[in-house]
Amino acid sequence: MNRFIVMKESSTRLIHGFSYFQPSFRGDVRLFSHFAGNSELNSRKSMEGLVRCSANYVPLTPISFLERSAKVYSGRTSIVYGSVKYTWRETHERCIKLASALAQLGIRRGDVVATLAPNVPAMYELHFAVPMVGAVLCPLNTRYDPLTVVALLKHSEAKVIFLDYELLDVTNRALKLYAKTGKESPMLVLISEADGLSSVDYNSTAIEYESFVATGHNGFEIRRPESELDPISVNYTSGTTSEPKGVVYTHRGAFLNSLNTSFLHGSGLAPVYLWTVPMFHCNGWSFTWGIAAQGGANICLRKVSAKAIFDSIALHNVTHMGAAPIVLNMMANAPDIERKQLPHKVEVMIGGATPPHHIFDKLEKLGFGLTNFYGLTETYGPAAYCQWQPEWDLLTPDQRSKLKSRQGIHHCCVEDADVKDPATMESVKADGETIGEIMLRGNTVMGGYLKNLEATEEAFKDGWFRSGDVAVKHPDGYIEVKDRLKDIVISGGENISTIEVEAVLCGHPAVLEAAVVGRPDDHWGETPCAFVKLKQGFNANAEDILNFCRDNMARYMTPRTIVFDDLPKTSTGKVKKFILREKAKGLGSLS
Amino acid sequence: MNRFIVMKESSTRLIHGFSYFQPSFRGDVRLFSHFAGNSELNSRKSMEGLVRCSANYVPLTPISFLERSAKVYSGRTSIVYGSVKYTWRETHERCIKLASALAQLGIRRGDVVATLAPNVPAMYELHFAVPMVGAVLCPLNTRYDPLTVVALLKHSEAKVIFLDYELLDVTNRALKLYAKTGKESPMLVLISEADGLSSVDYNSTAIEYESFVATGHNGFEIRRPESELDPISVNYTSGTTSEPKGVVYTHRGAFLNSLNTSFLHGSGLAPVYLWTVPMFHCNGWSFTWGIAAQGGANICLRKVSAKAIFDSIALHNVTHMGAAPIVLNMMANAPDIERKQLPHKVEVMIGGATPPHHIFDKLEKLGFGLTNFYGLTETYGPAAYCQWQPEWDLLTPDQRSKLKSRQGIHHCCVEDADVKDPATMESVKADGETIGEIMLRGNTVMGGYLKNLEATEEAFKDGWFRSGDVAVKHPDGYIEVKDRLKDIVISGGENISTIEVEAVLCGHPAVLEAAVVGRPDDHWGETPCAFVKLKQGFNANAEDILNFCRDNMARYMTPRTIVFDDLPKTSTGKVKKFILREKAKGLGSLS
Repeated sequence: MNRFIVMKESSTRLIHGFSYFQPSFRGDVRLFSHFAGNSELNSRKSMEGLVRCSANYVPLTPISFLERSAKVYSGRTSIVYGSVKYTWRETHERCIKLASALAQLGIRRGDVVATLAPNVPAMYELHFAVPMVGAVLCPLNTRYDPLTVVALLKHSEAKVIFLDYELLDVTNRALKLYAKTGKESPMLVLISEADGLSSVDYNSTAIEYESFVATGHNGFEIRRPESELDPISVNYTSGTTSEPKGVVYTHRGAFLNSLNTSFLHGSGLAPVYLWTVPMFHCNGWSFTWGIAAQGGANICLRKVSAKAIFDSIALHNVTHMGAAPIVLNMMANAPDIERKQLPHKVEVMIGGATPPHHIFDKLEKLGFGLTNFYGLTETYGPAAYCQWQPEWDLLTPDQRSKLKSRQGIHHCCVEDADVKDPATMESVKADGETIGEIMLRGNTVMGGYLKNLEATEEAFKDGWFRSGDVAVKHPDGYIEVKDRLKDIVISGGENISTIEVEAVLCGHPAVLEAAVVGRPDDHWGETPCAFVKLKQGFNANAEDILNFCRDNMARYMTPRTIVFDDLPKTSTGKVKKFILREKAKGLGSLS
Repeated sequence: MNRFIVMKESSTRLIHGFSYFQPSFRGDVRLFSHFAGNSELNSRKSMEGLVRCSANYVPLTPISFLERSAKVYSGRTSIVYGSVKYTWRETHERCIKLASALAQLGIRRGDVVATLAPNVPAMYELHFAVPMVGAVLCPLNTRYDPLTVVALLKHSEAKVIFLDYELLDVTNRALKLYAKTGKESPMLVLISEADGLSSVDYNSTAIEYESFVATGHNGFEIRRPESELDPISVNYTSGTTSEPKGVVYTHRGAFLNSLNTSFLHGSGLAPVYLWTVPMFHCNGWSFTWGIAAQGGANICLRKVSAKAIFDSIALHNVTHMGAAPIVLNMMANAPDIERKQLPHKVEVMIGGATPPHHIFDKLEKLGFGLTNFYGLTETYGPAAYCQWQPEWDLLTPDQRSKLKSRQGIHHCCVEDADVKDPATMESVKADGETIGEIMLRGNTVMGGYLKNLEATEEAFKDGWFRSGDVAVKHPDGYIEVKDRLKDIVISGGENISTIEVEAVLCGHPAVLEAAVVGRPDDHWGETPCAFVKLKQGFNANAEDILNFCRDNMARYMTPRTIVFDDLPKTSTGKVKKFILREKAKGLGSLS
């Protein structure tokens, strides 16, 4: 019965399923020459009587959230999807069975399990069941074309793919391409409608999800992470500037980010969370795990629409949701018939980019509470948030909306976030004007890019994660993003934030969308070139737009070229500026 | 510039001040025979491209909270104490200087720094400055007598003691006793009033706190923990049943508990926290560090009184506070002249024991929101809390108050909490009736008892921390404490919760306090014996009390003996039942 490790020497003995140890509490006397600040002997005084065992040490993992909720909120609703409804006890049981089924399939620790599915209950369950079998979840973007799907299945070496029935066609085409490579294709598990209502002819080689879960055992002993730095998921970036990169998350990072983010977003009290953010984006910005930490209810939607959002809010008493700008747009512009009175204030976490002021204002009038968040795939989603300050209540609406549109301050599990000169690593002045690159450090920064050590080392150069986002720091410490580093236009030595120019362009009544890139210019180096898509039924010519710009922004920022065109976008809805830059280059030099 | 550790082998190289590593992401293929649940090969699939460096790994420590608040809430109020007021930037600077001064004094990593002081700003600053020099904080209870102070200074091997001027006398007597042992006494730093108004004749050998801080350097490079399992503090238990034990906290545990507890207690938004809980109790139930995580304001009080509480709430717009039952009593029974209208709902975390219903009701009517918390020194303070469930809103006041008086469910950083049979380790039935011992596991359980490996191993027997608290588990998973394991009275084979009997006794209009212990009985084994203290100006005889008991509790629980007497208490205000048990024994067998 001696299950204790007395903390005297670093040890690698296995105990209660743990295989690694941190060093001694009472280590030998050592000298630490790197503490240059003082000349005292920096030796360590020892402490005795301490142990490390299962009573006081557990590797951090979001699996714990599910286990806790199954106990302390056992009868509370975990998932709602149409007529399907589970409690936390049921979700826990289903995840154990699913993990067991995966083990029976031969899934080993560290194996990759891919998904290609919208926000259905299976997607939520896989976020726990895959780590519970020691495997790594790889949720692919449902908008990928077959070629990308093949490339990422190969790159991740996925052993199984859980596939929604609506995406069967894309996947079949992808798997045919896969077969040509001579490699063994991943196994398929087909997700039908959770209420059994889908009527697709299943591919005969695929197992159906519910039947698959049923093959698992309740008594399966889950495979906890051996180390909290074990990988839990790999999320591919959208690839605005290059090939998608596989961002690897660890159990530790996932635990810390999801716990912290979910507490920041709302209270600990039974949130009802509406899923419009795809779970394949940074694992739902860490909220897949975070909602389990709070014992909240996950309201799942197969398809996001304004009607579905307002209906769900009214039907389920939604308290919280996340939303990308495109979804906010949808909500603000919903026709009256689709819009319903909110039962109470609904808190919305905004990610991706700051929406235009008029969208912000409209949604607030409808009863939504909006908070800007900032993060990247590499930071498990949310890393900073625009925390409201009580003294802002006294400001004018215009001042308030300026303050609210900033990205804000880093949360408690990000060790540090700063705006730095990427060449010198000096912090920029907190004057709201000097631009630099956002850099972050801490336990909620990714483990690295899968099989791309060069990119990992480049991203972590000088001991900080380089976000690639250009920003300013305000005197109150709040960060405001100005542009992507690669998108900024430098004209006659002036940095022009394309985001700012685009925001002005979108204020023109006829403009639906706009994207700005640099066009080569013999005199200025480059000048802003705007690609503009007009709203249906509206008209405007280049001169109208240019006049509007001249009236609303500094002279040097005003675009010199206006192109009316559709905007090419990535699978996550981001504009592919590299294509627009090619187009702008094709226009030739301006001066 | 190569500062990366590629995660391929376990390594112990120093990098960016870290001296230990967890094992490889892409370790070799290993077999794990302890996963008995399935027969598949349980080998590990490797992952490449991952690194560990300062960009993505930092040992968890509450020091980070202070550093973050100094940046993101730099101008916001950190501490208020009378006319003294600091911002987070100032508190951070003062802590760095204080850490530097300690380093100059020769304080090494792992050295113990003791305090003997009430909740003054110096106490708060020491909670960060001592860890920032790599040392271990040992906050002694200000009610200790000189003998105990000497014993604990010797046991902890404290190198310095920070001493409040009001406790100079006790300490001088203690140090005289210390000198007799022949050992070198700890150095003294004397805390005068932070506003410079105290007029005590300082002991000439002692340094004054503000002068001491002034000797430190702003540029001091703090000593971060080498491992997040390094000790951060040692808190001595009050010793209701035995000698005080030194409970050692780690940086990791302190980070997790303070973050989690402070989020549970309130929102992330600028709390104004009133200190009535001594910072020397479990480091202020982890709120010393937790308030820094939220950038809240610490309202410090030298002396707790109803008037000081109501005045502070009104003056500083207090939003949150913690309180032991004795403080709640004080607040509920305050004369009208000392009571002020609350500016808004004030959330109160209750620790120690559930107060009687009428106190609960009265405070709620005054505008306080009360939540029961449960924890021990060994769990960094709060481990469980009575989370309000929305459906409880529909119940009768009586039902609600029954539900609210329970200790509740464990928080997200406690891995598991259960009520178990201490002999068989089986979980008790969740029927609200079967009693067992509360046991806990997880990262917020202490590292162990300082220099008392035997006690540590006893406490962690079978891989769980044994709380020594007897409780039931209700069908909804909520735990309710019934008694201390050592206090329970077993009469004729029936377990009698002395807490329940005491609650009934306190319901008698003449009773101020009551404590129940077992009195030997030849027939029943033992029977309940009540020690009762009456309110001033009230009269009641034993027969009155016994009749009241018979009317309000089950026959077998009714005390057979009533003794009118003062109750002997520990320095933390807990009744010393072992003394009462001796007295009861002295009465002889009843039957």
